[in-house]
Amino acid sequence: MTAAEILAIGDELVHGALLDTNSRYITRELESHGLPVRRFTVVGDDPQQLAAAMADACRRADVVVATGGLGPTLDDRTREVAAELVGAPLQFDAAAWEMVRQYLSSRRRPVPESNRRQALFPLGATVLSNPVGTAPGFRVRIDRAELFVLPGVPREMRVMLQDHVLPFVAALPGARPTAQYYLRVVGPSEALLGERIAAFMVADRNPAVGVTVSAGMITIRIVATAATAAAAAAMCAATADELRPLLGEWLLAEGLAELPELAVRRLAAAGLTLATAESCTGGLVAAALTDVAGVSAVFRGGFVTYSDASKLGELGVDAAVLADHGAVSEAVAAAMATGAANRLGARLGLSVTGIAGPDGGTPDKPVGTVCFGLAADGRARSWTLRIPDLGRDFIRQRAVVEAWAALLRLPTST
Amino acid sequence: MTAAEILAIGDELVHGALLDTNSRYITRELESHGLPVRRFTVVGDDPQQLAAAMADACRRADVVVATGGLGPTLDDRTREVAAELVGAPLQFDAAAWEMVRQYLSSRRRPVPESNRRQALFPLGATVLSNPVGTAPGFRVRIDRAELFVLPGVPREMRVMLQDHVLPFVAALPGARPTAQYYLRVVGPSEALLGERIAAFMVADRNPAVGVTVSAGMITIRIVATAATAAAAAAMCAATADELRPLLGEWLLAEGLAELPELAVRRLAAAGLTLATAESCTGGLVAAALTDVAGVSAVFRGGFVTYSDASKLGELGVDAAVLADHGAVSEAVAAAMATGAANRLGARLGLSVTGIAGPDGGTPDKPVGTVCFGLAADGRARSWTLRIPDLGRDFIRQRAVVEAWAALLRLPTST
Repeated sequence: MTAAEILAIGDELVHGALLDTNSRYITRELESHGLPVRRFTVVGDDPQQLAAAMADACRRADVVVATGGLGPTLDDRTREVAAELVGAPLQFDAAAWEMVRQYLSSRRRPVPESNRRQALFPLGATVLSNPVGTAPGFRVRIDRAELFVLPGVPREMRVMLQDHVLPFVAALPGARPTAQYYLRVVGPSEALLGERIAAFMVADRNPAVGVTVSAGMITIRIVATAATAAAAAAMCAATADELRPLLGEWLLAEGLAELPELAVRRLAAAGLTLATAESCTGGLVAAALTDVAGVSAVFRGGFVTYSDASKLGELGVDAAVLADHGAVSEAVAAAMATGAANRLGARLGLSVTGIAGPDGGTPDKPVGTVCFGLAADGRARSWTLRIPDLGRDFIRQRAVVEAWAALLRLPTST
Repeated sequence: MTAAEILAIGDELVHGALLDTNSRYITRELESHGLPVRRFTVVGDDPQQLAAAMADACRRADVVVATGGLGPTLDDRTREVAAELVGAPLQFDAAAWEMVRQYLSSRRRPVPESNRRQALFPLGATVLSNPVGTAPGFRVRIDRAELFVLPGVPREMRVMLQDHVLPFVAALPGARPTAQYYLRVVGPSEALLGERIAAFMVADRNPAVGVTVSAGMITIRIVATAATAAAAAAMCAATADELRPLLGEWLLAEGLAELPELAVRRLAAAGLTLATAESCTGGLVAAALTDVAGVSAVFRGGFVTYSDASKLGELGVDAAVLADHGAVSEAVAAAMATGAANRLGARLGLSVTGIAGPDGGTPDKPVGTVCFGLAADGRARSWTLRIPDLGRDFIRQRAVVEAWAALLRLPTST
C-alpha cells in the first residue's frame, strides 16, 4: 500500500532548541489528499546521521517529504547528503540562482554570495521553485521513494507543499482519500470516556476512533478511509451520529475548527459583541480570539487586570465587594464581567480570575481555584472551577478552555 | 559512542491532531545530562508500525525513551508491542494496580475497571511509578537498548523522566556532559548573519555553532561537549566571547531564558512597573508576560484595544489625534502607551498598534505596518516597523519580538 514518511532535519530540532511543527502540518495535508503517513523522523544536520535517516525513510516509504537544512549557512547539509544517496554530484542551477537573486533584489535586500549555495542541487533532481523565500527545494528518486526536499521555514514549506507535493500526491494511483471529524468533550476523565465509547475504539475499525487529552478537553478523533473523499466524510458523519447520544452534555463542539474560531463564529451568528477581563489567564483569551480572522466584528476589546487596583479602577469593581470576597471570588468575577461589558459597550462580558500558582493559594482557595463571570445585557452569572494543581500552565490552559465552553454553551437566542 | 533515540507514540501525533512537544523536552534533558540524542521518531498506535519503529530504535541506540500509548483505552498498544519485542507475555502487577487505585481514590474519583490495563507489563520489566497520574511506566532491555516507556501526558512524562530516566543516564559510563548557550539576534537576515559568523559554523567544531530563525529573531546556538558540565559551560562562554564583537547592536539577549522572562527580570532589576496596550497583538504580550513567575511585581495590567472606541475611551487617546493620524500611527501609539501607563499607575507604558492582515492594508500603510510606543515617566517615544507580509501570525509574532526588544534595550538607568 502506498504510504509516506516525513523527515524533519536540523540540529535545532533534534537538540531541542526548536519544536518541529512542520511535520504535523504535512501529515494533515498528505492524509487529506489520500496518502497515509506512517512515521515522522527528526534528525540533526550531522551528515552521517542524516544520510542514515534519509536512506531508511526512502527504503520504507513511497513518498518522503523532508524539510530543513536548505539554508545558506554551512551547517545546512541536506543538499550534499541527498546527492550522496543519489550517487550524483551537486550542480549549480543558474535559473534557480536567478530566482534567489530576484527574490532578494525585489525586496531591496543585499544578495550575499553565500546564498549561491542555495542554487546547488543533485544532478538530475527537479528544482522546486520557492515564491516566498530564498531556498528552492528539489525532488529526486531515492530507492523506492519519491523524495521531496523543502525548506524548514514554515511559511515557505507550506506554499511549496501546496505547489509541488500535493498535486503529485493527488495523482498517485494508490491514494485512498481520508476524512477526519472531531468531537470536543469537556467533563469526564479519559478512562470514563473511554469506557463509554469502548465499542468504537477497536483495532482496524474504519472509521478509526481515538481520543486525545489536553488541559481538560478531550478530542475524539474520527478518521475514515474510502474510495472518495466524499464517501470518507459520510462515514465520519455516520460514526459521529452514533457517538453523539453517548456523550450528552459532555459534548462541547464538533468539527475540525479550533474552539476560539467556533466561539467567534457563534458570537457573529448571534450578532453578539464581547469584552473580556482576564486576571490569571493574563490575555490568553484575548490573544486567541484576536488570532481568528473576522474577530473585529464581535470583539470590542479586553482588560488584563493583574492587580487589585486595576480591577477596581478599570472595571469599576466595588471596593467593598473586593474587600469582602477577595479578588478570586464569584462576586468579583461577576463584577469584572459586567464592568468589562459596560466599559467597552459590549453586550457580553466574560471574566476570569483565579490562582494559577505556584504561590497565592490558601486552604480555602487552593491553587487552581478559578472563578468565571459571564454578563449578558447587564445580568451576570458566575461560577467556580477547582482545577487540579498540575502546574501554572495547565491551570491557565484549563481556564481558557472553560472560557470557550462558556461562550459555546450560550443559549442560541440570547 | 553512547547515544539515545526518542520515540513518540500515538495516532493523534502521526496523523497531526496533536503536536509532539515531549521529544523536545526529553532531548534537552538527556543532552544536558551528557547523553547525545541522534533521532526522534513519531509513529502511530498501529501495532505493526509501532513494532517496526520500536525495534529500529532499539537496534540503533543505547537508550530509547518512548512516550505514549499507556492509557486505559483500547487504542493504546505500547505495552503489547513491547512485550512482543521482548518475547515475554504481559503480566498483571498487583502493586502497580494498587498505586493506580490509590491515585484515583485519593482524588475521590471513580476507579473504572478499564484502568486495570494500566497495570499490565511485559514479564521481567521494571515498573516505573507515576506519582502524578494513573499510567505507570516500565523499563526493559530490547536488543542493544535500555528502553524506558513513559506516559504521553507531558506533566507525567516530565516527573517520571526526572525520577527514573535521568539518574540512569547520569550514571552511564559513556556520558559526555554538554552545555548550551544562546545569543538572540534581531536585525540581520539569516544569510547576512551567516556570513558574519561563517568561521564558527563549520562541521565538527566543538562548541558547535548553529542558527535558528523565528519571526524576525535569530537564535545563535552554542553547544559544547566536554568531560564535565563545568568545562562544557566554560567552552560555550569562550565562544560567546568571540562572537559578541561580531554581532554589535544586533545582539539583543543572551542565555537560555526566553525573552519574556528576560524582560521581566530586567524590569524587576530596574524597579520599573509596566502597563501594556495592544491592538494587533491582541494580548499576546500580556499573556507571555503573565506566564513568567514573579511578573506581578512589575506588571500592572494591560488593555486589548481592538476598536477605535476603546482606544479613545480606555486609554484617553485624543479623538483629534486618532482622526488626523489614524489608529495605526506613531502619534496614536505614543498616546496609547502614555494612556496605559497613566491609567494603571505604571512607570512604563508599552503599546502596539498595527495591521496584521489579511485585510486592512492601504498603499500608505500596507499590511505589516506596525507602530510601537514606549512611555517612561510621562514622556513617550514611538516608531514604526514595516514587517514583511508573511501572514497574520508572522506579523503578530514579529511585533511581539519587537516589544521584548524595546523592553530589553531600555537604558539601564531609567
